[in-house]
Amino acid sequence: MSKNPVIDQIVDTYRPIWALNHAASLFEWDLETYMPVDAAKSRGFAQGQLALIQQQKVLNLTENASKAEKLDGLNDYEKGIIRKIKRALKYYTKVPPELVEKLTRTTTEASVVWREARKRSDFSLFEPYLEKIVQLKRKEADKLGYEAHPYNALMDLFEEDLTTRDVDKVFSPLVTALKKILSRIESSKSFRSNHKLEDVAYGEEAMKRVNQEVLRILGMPDKTFRMDVSTHPFTSSMSLDDVRITTRYEGKSFRETIFSVIHECGHALYDLQIDHSLEYTPLGDGPSLGIHESQSRFWENFVGRSREFTNLLYPTLKKNLPFVSEYSEGEIYKYFNLVRPTLIRVAADEVTYNFHIVVRYEVEKKLIGGEAKVSEIPEIWDDMMEDYVGVRPQNLAEGVLQDVHWSGGMIGYFPTYSLGNVIAGMVSNRMKRDLNVQDLIARGDISPIKLWLRENIHKWGAIYSPRELQKKALGDVYNPEYLVKYLEEKYLT
Amino acid sequence: MSKNPVIDQIVDTYRPIWALNHAASLFEWDLETYMPVDAAKSRGFAQGQLALIQQQKVLNLTENASKAEKLDGLNDYEKGIIRKIKRALKYYTKVPPELVEKLTRTTTEASVVWREARKRSDFSLFEPYLEKIVQLKRKEADKLGYEAHPYNALMDLFEEDLTTRDVDKVFSPLVTALKKILSRIESSKSFRSNHKLEDVAYGEEAMKRVNQEVLRILGMPDKTFRMDVSTHPFTSSMSLDDVRITTRYEGKSFRETIFSVIHECGHALYDLQIDHSLEYTPLGDGPSLGIHESQSRFWENFVGRSREFTNLLYPTLKKNLPFVSEYSEGEIYKYFNLVRPTLIRVAADEVTYNFHIVVRYEVEKKLIGGEAKVSEIPEIWDDMMEDYVGVRPQNLAEGVLQDVHWSGGMIGYFPTYSLGNVIAGMVSNRMKRDLNVQDLIARGDISPIKLWLRENIHKWGAIYSPRELQKKALGDVYNPEYLVKYLEEKYLT
Repeated sequence: MSKNPVIDQIVDTYRPIWALNHAASLFEWDLETYMPVDAAKSRGFAQGQLALIQQQKVLNLTENASKAEKLDGLNDYEKGIIRKIKRALKYYTKVPPELVEKLTRTTTEASVVWREARKRSDFSLFEPYLEKIVQLKRKEADKLGYEAHPYNALMDLFEEDLTTRDVDKVFSPLVTALKKILSRIESSKSFRSNHKLEDVAYGEEAMKRVNQEVLRILGMPDKTFRMDVSTHPFTSSMSLDDVRITTRYEGKSFRETIFSVIHECGHALYDLQIDHSLEYTPLGDGPSLGIHESQSRFWENFVGRSREFTNLLYPTLKKNLPFVSEYSEGEIYKYFNLVRPTLIRVAADEVTYNFHIVVRYEVEKKLIGGEAKVSEIPEIWDDMMEDYVGVRPQNLAEGVLQDVHWSGGMIGYFPTYSLGNVIAGMVSNRMKRDLNVQDLIARGDISPIKLWLRENIHKWGAIYSPRELQKKALGDVYNPEYLVKYLEEKYLT
Repeated sequence: MSKNPVIDQIVDTYRPIWALNHAASLFEWDLETYMPVDAAKSRGFAQGQLALIQQQKVLNLTENASKAEKLDGLNDYEKGIIRKIKRALKYYTKVPPELVEKLTRTTTEASVVWREARKRSDFSLFEPYLEKIVQLKRKEADKLGYEAHPYNALMDLFEEDLTTRDVDKVFSPLVTALKKILSRIESSKSFRSNHKLEDVAYGEEAMKRVNQEVLRILGMPDKTFRMDVSTHPFTSSMSLDDVRITTRYEGKSFRETIFSVIHECGHALYDLQIDHSLEYTPLGDGPSLGIHESQSRFWENFVGRSREFTNLLYPTLKKNLPFVSEYSEGEIYKYFNLVRPTLIRVAADEVTYNFHIVVRYEVEKKLIGGEAKVSEIPEIWDDMMEDYVGVRPQNLAEGVLQDVHWSGGMIGYFPTYSLGNVIAGMVSNRMKRDLNVQDLIARGDISPIKLWLRENIHKWGAIYSPRELQKKALGDVYNPEYLVKYLEEKYLT
């Protein structure tokens, strides 16, 4: 892909970094699936040691990276390599090792404390840790440098080049439109705030058979993919030939595990369809969290929650879950698409979900911008939830303590979830030019959809920046119109 | 454990090496248990990259290691650190990276070819690879240096300081005694060459419950230990708080999976009982394969195959495997202890097992000493099997092609299996001074046995060399008398 010796050398020097990432992914996957609980300490130690090696190895790229900047006439692959290497180098040259180490140590401790705080619904336990984390993240932003708002430096770590201006431009019309949709739904005669099936218990073995059928419908491969069980569903890519998802079985409301499987399969399909020539290079991944999330959301919402997919899955549901026979396909569709204000983000529907994100985004901006103290956050959170979603948490476990992200230092991450929804809307809109998507789903013929995504998005890996890729593949950038239009059509007609 | 700054620095510098070993162990465990099959190539790539980093990191120890050699008045811990570091450095400074790389590449390919050769029972497929491996291992021995026989250099990689003279001194009386025992057994009136239970099928779920009960009896911990399924049973130690075993369910002859579990638990208990102050140092492991194997053999044969353990397990067997009710405890004991000539090493009983090892040891010596050509090996093997065990393989899959070791470059490894048996005999003999072992097993009171092993052997990790540890803990070194006496008492009285 490159005949340039400097680029070749960079790719060579990157190999051990790839291998260390591979190890880190396996560490994480193992930690969440099979690792004995008391192994956490030694695993953390190993992770820290490998992270130090990683840092050294990235810094080894410095010389060739500055040589590469002076090169002319590069192709897209070569430019992509340089872009990614410069981003990695920026982080490790600007953020001092002591700060990285402090962040790692603090967040490792904080994750344990957060778990306990959530369990006891006690913010005071977590408060000193969150204060420290906010402080450290502000320092990180200062070291990285930013324009306009320190939060921009943090968001950039997850979504290249994203600013609060960009996000505001997306969220402001999105919120207006979604509030309208929600109030129309709530005031309709057929509005329901819950569904009987949410309380119906299922057997885990039967549910596993349903999920296997979901994997079969989506055409997930046998030899490069697997599914396990973990507390929180996630996707882990060890390599382009080793992508693994997890799901969980909560024992009731069977849609949760099904949609988590479809969601994670969306992530997995992305990684499995990246061009193999990008393996072992810095480009063997999606370009950002927002783009990656667009794929999981596209499959979960635009495919999985469609009437056609519901019908396609219905016989499998009836066969394995006897209680489903009491419900028509139409009723299952309603159960899959119940829109109503709720408190928990991960269980939210595709309309109100974005309100949960906006609340987090506003709170994070205030914290990092110094406009709010950590101690004020629970109250701000509750007020905003009431304002945006229309419900007020009765305790902190279903309020400000519900998400793991802050304890892990992932501030600036949340907005990418809604950007994923927005980009999924753009994907769905663009795909319709080439494919009759609903028809394909109805026939269970999923491969043309996968092929379209591969050709337009997946195969490019991280060659293009998130903006470039959106422009190239979807003809637009972070435009919420398509999502709004889709939701209006789905819920208001 | 050390107040010496040079030793401290060595231990510090060793940390990333520990982490890389941790990653390598997890790679291996994952490969054998859950990894999707087509991920082998990228896993191999990652392994190779981490091995290169590992080599660099070991070489970083050079300067402090030579400083440390000049230190006086060191304690055992400090001496142990230096001994282990010198061994690692010796390997990486004497064996050139190209040879290491060639060995890795050749054995990776050879493992695939061997699998196919065994399947087809066709030596000619494997022959060119074995030739190359023998050549490379001879070169490795030359680079490492040796006295008397190049095979000594190779054995030393698995069992510190072991020579063919030592092994001959063990095997020669052992073979004489075992031949006598076997012929006495074969000529006895009650001799049986097989047992009905070898053909009885079991259900996997029921068998898993039995194995869980075995784990409970042995007191395997919940939070630092786990058991999975793989093609070949093995133990993998990620850290002193993360030790995992595997077993396999072949569907018939239920003793196989039970004894593989007990065997691997013997390895696992060793690693779990190493003193935690040795974690993250070069001493957080047993000192050699022979010593490690002594623990697995002690538990498998001296505990597991005892009459008392059989009785202890009998109710569990009857409860979960209905067909067991047709057999008395005495009959199960006979089934557990059937001694007769067989062709497959891994299924051999505790008497004839050692013949299998002697055959491999003699063949390896001839190959590495240049006294036999690779092409002559199948015939030599068959002749020796007939001579030692008294049976002649009818095909190569049950003959010279049965073991994975040579394809992986592990020449010099086999003797440690029988040394393990020999040392297990020494352990059992010595333990009787302090404990009434049979009585404890009969009562299911296993913890005093574990405690004894911890205090005398496990907790020291690799502080002492294999010889030092044997002398210190068992008062003797590689002495086969105790094993012979145990087998004579068990099978001839």
